[in-house]
Amino acid sequence: MASFYGIGVGPGDSELLTIKAVNTIKKLDILYAPQAHKGGRSVAENIAAPYLPANLKIKRRHFPMINDWEKKIKSWQEIAEEIAKDVKNDNNVGFLTLGDPSVYSTFSYIAKMLAERIDIQTIAGISSFSQIAASLSVPLMLDEESLEIIPATADITQLEKAIDLNDNVVIMKIATRFAQVYKILEQRDLLSKTIVVENASMEKQKKQRLIDYSINDKLPYFSTALLKKGNKNVKSN
Amino acid sequence: MASFYGIGVGPGDSELLTIKAVNTIKKLDILYAPQAHKGGRSVAENIAAPYLPANLKIKRRHFPMINDWEKKIKSWQEIAEEIAKDVKNDNNVGFLTLGDPSVYSTFSYIAKMLAERIDIQTIAGISSFSQIAASLSVPLMLDEESLEIIPATADITQLEKAIDLNDNVVIMKIATRFAQVYKILEQRDLLSKTIVVENASMEKQKKQRLIDYSINDKLPYFSTALLKKGNKNVKSN
Repeated sequence: MASFYGIGVGPGDSELLTIKAVNTIKKLDILYAPQAHKGGRSVAENIAAPYLPANLKIKRRHFPMINDWEKKIKSWQEIAEEIAKDVKNDNNVGFLTLGDPSVYSTFSYIAKMLAERIDIQTIAGISSFSQIAASLSVPLMLDEESLEIIPATADITQLEKAIDLNDNVVIMKIATRFAQVYKILEQRDLLSKTIVVENASMEKQKKQRLIDYSINDKLPYFSTALLKKGNKNVKSN
Repeated sequence: MASFYGIGVGPGDSELLTIKAVNTIKKLDILYAPQAHKGGRSVAENIAAPYLPANLKIKRRHFPMINDWEKKIKSWQEIAEEIAKDVKNDNNVGFLTLGDPSVYSTFSYIAKMLAERIDIQTIAGISSFSQIAASLSVPLMLDEESLEIIPATADITQLEKAIDLNDNVVIMKIATRFAQVYKILEQRDLLSKTIVVENASMEKQKKQRLIDYSINDKLPYFSTALLKKGNKNVKSN
C-alpha cells in the first residue's frame, strides 16, 4: 500500500535531516516541494537536495503566504486532491517540510484534509528552536523548568503570560512584531536574557542578544528569540 | 583543535539520528555513554550502535539517578574532569544523549561545567515530544497556538497554569506523578483530549488516550502525555 509522507528536513543545514528522512526520500515515487512564491525556489527542497535521486519526480507547488484563509485553504485543498490521487494510483508520495512537520507546518493541514482517505506517515525533523539551542550550546530546559513556544503573532496578553509564567520561552516569527515583543521584554528587564538567532543553521546565521538590537530594527523572516530567565551566561557571537 | 560534542540520538529508533550526528560520531576518538545503572546497558549507546565504528574507544560512565544533588554533582564533576583531560590531550570526545541534548539532559550540566575550558559543540536530536507528535501524525501546534512543555515533577500550581493557559501541553515524566496529573486533567474534562505515548519509537511503544487509563495505573518511565485542547480527533491505536 502506498503512503503519504510528511518529511521534516530540519532548519537549514542539510546534515540535519535524519537517516529516516533520507531513507524515506529514497522510496518515494513523487515528491511535493512547497514554494512560498510562484516560480521561486523551495527552501525545503534546497535543504534536501543532496539526498534527492536524479530520477525522482518533483512537483513544486505554490503555497500562498497570505492572510486570506478562504483562498489559502482552497489552494491547499487543490494540492491535497492531487496528492490523494497520486497515492491512490499507488505512488509513495512525499511532502517536504522545513524544520519539524509537527511544528507550525502546512503539512499538518494537508494531512488533516487527507487523514480519512489515505495512509499518512510523519517523519520528525529538527525544529528551529532545537537547533537554536544547539547552536548556542545552552539548554532549552533543565530539571523542573518549563518551556513555552509561542509565535509573536499570538494574542498580546497570552504572549505576556507566557513570558511571565515560564522559565524559558521561545518566541517564533519575532520579525513580524519585533517592536511590540521588544517592548514587553524591555518592561520586564529581560532584554539581556533573550537571544535572537536569525536564519538558524542557514548561510547567514547571526546570533545576538536582544539588548544589542534597537526597537526599530527590521529582522529577517527566519528569526527566533530564546528567553532564558535562569541563564546568566547568554553570550553573543 | 579537539572538541567536546554532545550528540542527540533521538528517542529510540536508530533511524532518528541525524546525518550530522552520524558524521560527528565518525570523527570521534573517544565516546562517553551514560549508564543509569552501574554495569547496566546504555540506552543511548544501543540506539547509536549501528553507527559506532568497531575501533571507537567507548567509556561507559555511571550517572546516578538520585535526588541527592550534592552526590550527583560530585559524580558529574568527576566525569567532566575526565572529559576535559581527554579533550586537552587532543581527542575529539563525544557524549551521547537520549533525545535532544537541549531538552532536560545531563549533557547540559557537563557542558556548563566545561564551557570556559574546552570547545563545546551540540548536535541537535529529535526530542521525544517531536517523535510523539510524528507517531500520531498530529501537529504539536498550528498558527497562533502555543505549546508548553513541562515535567510532571514541576510545582503543581505551575502545572495547572500550563494546562489552563495553553492550547497544547506536553507533560514529560508523567509516570512519576501519574495520579495527580490524571486528577488535574479529569477535573477539567480534558482526559479525552490527552494522549499518552509510552516508550516513544522504542520496541514496546504504546499509544492510548488518558481516558482509557485508570488513575492508579503504573506507567513505564519513558511515558509522555500530549494534551491538545483544539483537537477533536485524537485516536488510540
